[in-house]
Amino acid sequence: MPVIDLNADLAEGFGMWTLGDDDALLDVITSANVACGFHAGDPLIMRRVCAAARDRRVTVGAQVSYRDLAGFGRREMDVAPAELAAEVLYQLAALDGIARAEGTRVAYVKPHGALYNRIVRDPVQARAVADAVRAYDPALPLLTLPRSAVHGVAGGLAVVAECFADRAYTPAGGLVPRREPGAVIHDAAAVVDRAVRMAVDGTVLAVDGTEIAVGARSICVHGDTPGAVGLARAVRAALLEAGVRLEPFA
Amino acid sequence: MPVIDLNADLAEGFGMWTLGDDDALLDVITSANVACGFHAGDPLIMRRVCAAARDRRVTVGAQVSYRDLAGFGRREMDVAPAELAAEVLYQLAALDGIARAEGTRVAYVKPHGALYNRIVRDPVQARAVADAVRAYDPALPLLTLPRSAVHGVAGGLAVVAECFADRAYTPAGGLVPRREPGAVIHDAAAVVDRAVRMAVDGTVLAVDGTEIAVGARSICVHGDTPGAVGLARAVRAALLEAGVRLEPFA
Amino acid sequence: MPVIDLNADLAEGFGMWTLGDDDALLDVITSANVACGFHAGDPLIMRRVCAAARDRRVTVGAQVSYRDLAGFGRREMDVAPAELAAEVLYQLAALDGIARAEGTRVAYVKPHGALYNRIVRDPVQARAVADAVRAYDPALPLLTLPRSAVHGVAGGLAVVAECFADRAYTPAGGLVPRREPGAVIHDAAAVVDRAVRMAVDGTVLAVDGTEIAVGARSICVHGDTPGAVGLARAVRAALLEAGVRLEPFA
Amino acid sequence: MPVIDLNADLAEGFGMWTLGDDDALLDVITSANVACGFHAGDPLIMRRVCAAARDRRVTVGAQVSYRDLAGFGRREMDVAPAELAAEVLYQLAALDGIARAEGTRVAYVKPHGALYNRIVRDPVQARAVADAVRAYDPALPLLTLPRSAVHGVAGGLAVVAECFADRAYTPAGGLVPRREPGAVIHDAAAVVDRAVRMAVDGTVLAVDGTEIAVGARSICVHGDTPGAVGLARAVRAALLEAGVRLEPFA
Repeated sequence: MPVIDLNADLAEGFGMWTLGDDDALLDVITSANVACGFHAGDPLIMRRVCAAARDRRVTVGAQVSYRDLAGFGRREMDVAPAELAAEVLYQLAALDGIARAEGTRVAYVKPHGALYNRIVRDPVQARAVADAVRAYDPALPLLTLPRSAVHGVAGGLAVVAECFADRAYTPAGGLVPRREPGAVIHDAAAVVDRAVRMAVDGTVLAVDGTEIAVGARSICVHGDTPGAVGLARAVRAALLEAGVRLEPFA
Repeated sequence: MPVIDLNADLAEGFGMWTLGDDDALLDVITSANVACGFHAGDPLIMRRVCAAARDRRVTVGAQVSYRDLAGFGRREMDVAPAELAAEVLYQLAALDGIARAEGTRVAYVKPHGALYNRIVRDPVQARAVADAVRAYDPALPLLTLPRSAVHGVAGGLAVVAECFADRAYTPAGGLVPRREPGAVIHDAAAVVDRAVRMAVDGTVLAVDGTEIAVGARSICVHGDTPGAVGLARAVRAALLEAGVRLEPFA
Repeated sequence: MPVIDLNADLAEGFGMWTLGDDDALLDVITSANVACGFHAGDPLIMRRVCAAARDRRVTVGAQVSYRDLAGFGRREMDVAPAELAAEVLYQLAALDGIARAEGTRVAYVKPHGALYNRIVRDPVQARAVADAVRAYDPALPLLTLPRSAVHGVAGGLAVVAECFADRAYTPAGGLVPRREPGAVIHDAAAVVDRAVRMAVDGTVLAVDGTEIAVGARSICVHGDTPGAVGLARAVRAALLEAGVRLEPFA
Repeated sequence: MPVIDLNADLAEGFGMWTLGDDDALLDVITSANVACGFHAGDPLIMRRVCAAARDRRVTVGAQVSYRDLAGFGRREMDVAPAELAAEVLYQLAALDGIARAEGTRVAYVKPHGALYNRIVRDPVQARAVADAVRAYDPALPLLTLPRSAVHGVAGGLAVVAECFADRAYTPAGGLVPRREPGAVIHDAAAVVDRAVRMAVDGTVLAVDGTEIAVGARSICVHGDTPGAVGLARAVRAALLEAGVRLEPFA
């Protein structure tokens, strides 16, 4: 029986502002990437999402980010390694403390946005992130892309790969950048089919039709666009129908 | 043999900006109130100060604050209790994670600036702070003034009193507000004398000459004004000479 | 023929986050209170809303606020007068420069949230706000409540009153605080009736039935709650049907 | 008689934190690059520095920056052009309004830190900055390096070159990056000699001894390091002694 995890970004509001439907997503996913306050996520929304995740038995992960509320962590920043490591450690510890106060805990780390993309190709920032996670708890896995610079600098940290049912892949196995046309797949049926193929066969078709082995233990779904929750629900339903067991990877 | 703790605020720089002389103060004090990022203190300076405190065997406390970098946490804010509790929990957990990564840990909590003053008289915000600390670790004491609203709402949390050798006291035992003349005592000899009296006799003279029992286990010294470190050193030396043992209260 | 202005808060998103439907409101109102970046409103949304307001011939006002993104400017803060004046001047100038680059200009100032409420009763902060506006342009009116402390400290600045069709009034003519039950009126028909009465008769009924003279040249409508835009449209339609001319007050 | 301008960065404190000695520098320089709140500079310090600059007849320029208080604007950021333009416009307008309230005005724009370096080589961000300045006031010159990408995209805006007496130059006429050894020249006599040569001959020697024409109308001096003010004073004195007239370039 194939097993897969479904992860999504949660707690991405800030103060007065909301983003996505956290409650709805918690009924779909098995792992919640909870924002930690640097790109989104104030302490109160973090606490509420941790409590709700605990109630639904959804695993909590730390969605660490560059310090960039105005840019939602989507703008690459040349942060010095020592500073980046301290910032990741700060965010991770803050969320874990909140999670523990709510009876759960951080079980993995997934960098967000521009930091996520940066550590795929930059071993310096990748090492800073890995060092911070290891300094906090060497048992925490890092959720990232299969072919990431972080593999080479993880220093014993487990690195777990995820895949994206709604993102186009290059033939080399990378994600097509968001700014390029076709980067995000909006056709619901296609997304659902890709998710099932990813979970059952472990493969995805790149933009040129090449079959790629995704080698992933988790599928990332999104909740911040219109129809996203409906799509995530459809992915979940199709996976269950295809006989896939949904289970947190961490 | 009388025993007293000396505490001071540390890690109160932010990014490019520095404040006070953390290294010098670490040779004077026994407890470091480390800023947690909301009024001052970026993750890197927090980490460095935790490492230095560990090296000098200085106890680390969490100096939690309102979210107010521009006002250095000195402006009172009407933060809703649930939000305040989450913010305190966030800061406390972030610092403790950093401290543990550096081989030490947060041993107490001391609210900063306007929050410190607010919880002396506002049981709603006091309870929010106490709830947050208890949710994180009910064994952590709260360092505050002797006559504080927090005593009534601590819910089992230990509340430890501190006193200020360089601050004027009202006859009722409160601090003269900073905006009033004479609030801060600048005469070094007077500050030193007050500190010794506080440690040996447990008393201080109020602005009108009334002798007040301070009932404190820690004396707060400052490091962010010219000559402050020299004064703190003089306080330490005088305490040792008077046969007082300096020891972390937590 | 009675004349009234309709004002609403716009540009209250920030970066990734949106709030309300600015485009829809611009078809309803005659004056746009544009957020200036301290409680909401990044420079890009400010610029876009100014351009859209220019296109629809909607007057632009500066919605100045405490520096409090996390609390959306709704938490009272004890900001020192010199600092508050500088902050108001900064926000006002920033928006006016953006407005002028888009072919319009700031024609009035309306404090936001907790600052709005504070200057109704605190002459110190009220004077700081008035001083800042006067320092920038003494011809700019200040939009506030009829009975406000700012009247006594405006120093020649025009002070214009507004009223709220969807807010309950105390018999003394003040707004019922948001935290109290019944503070916001959700019954659409009642809101519409109140708006027409405010514009045609210049009166409103307080929570105890007392008739109050509103003495206002503008009605504030909201756009940040579900159904708010529909309600604002209904208010506009009913005003036009009642023979009221809608016109910017500034 | 050779003429040169001396410019320095001012108002780079924030809230509680100070940086450099603004008052001392105002007696040395002819043009003050005033921070605008995004990398440093709260509204109150901006206002005070503008008032002091007016008193000393020092010209005020807008030191616009990336939004990055934690990194002091020194970390490169991939900000989208429309957003960057709006941010520059916001900062420029805010400072100009404050300056005008104090009886002076912004006479030029000088990007700060990582933005300064970025627009030297990136025409996209350079165009965004130039567009913003032109939208605010097409008569404002932009102060930058002689060989900058901004020249090609200024669209009619005047671009004025500056040089750095305390920074090493590459043979190609660029600045040696700060992270490289020898980037900043600490020998006071050497800095003074370079300044005089820059003003009188219009040249500087690169790290390999190549003589470069600096083609600059302003020399940048620094005030944020120990001894910086003394060095700036020495530069000023040597220039005057060499018969150079000190005069704002704008």
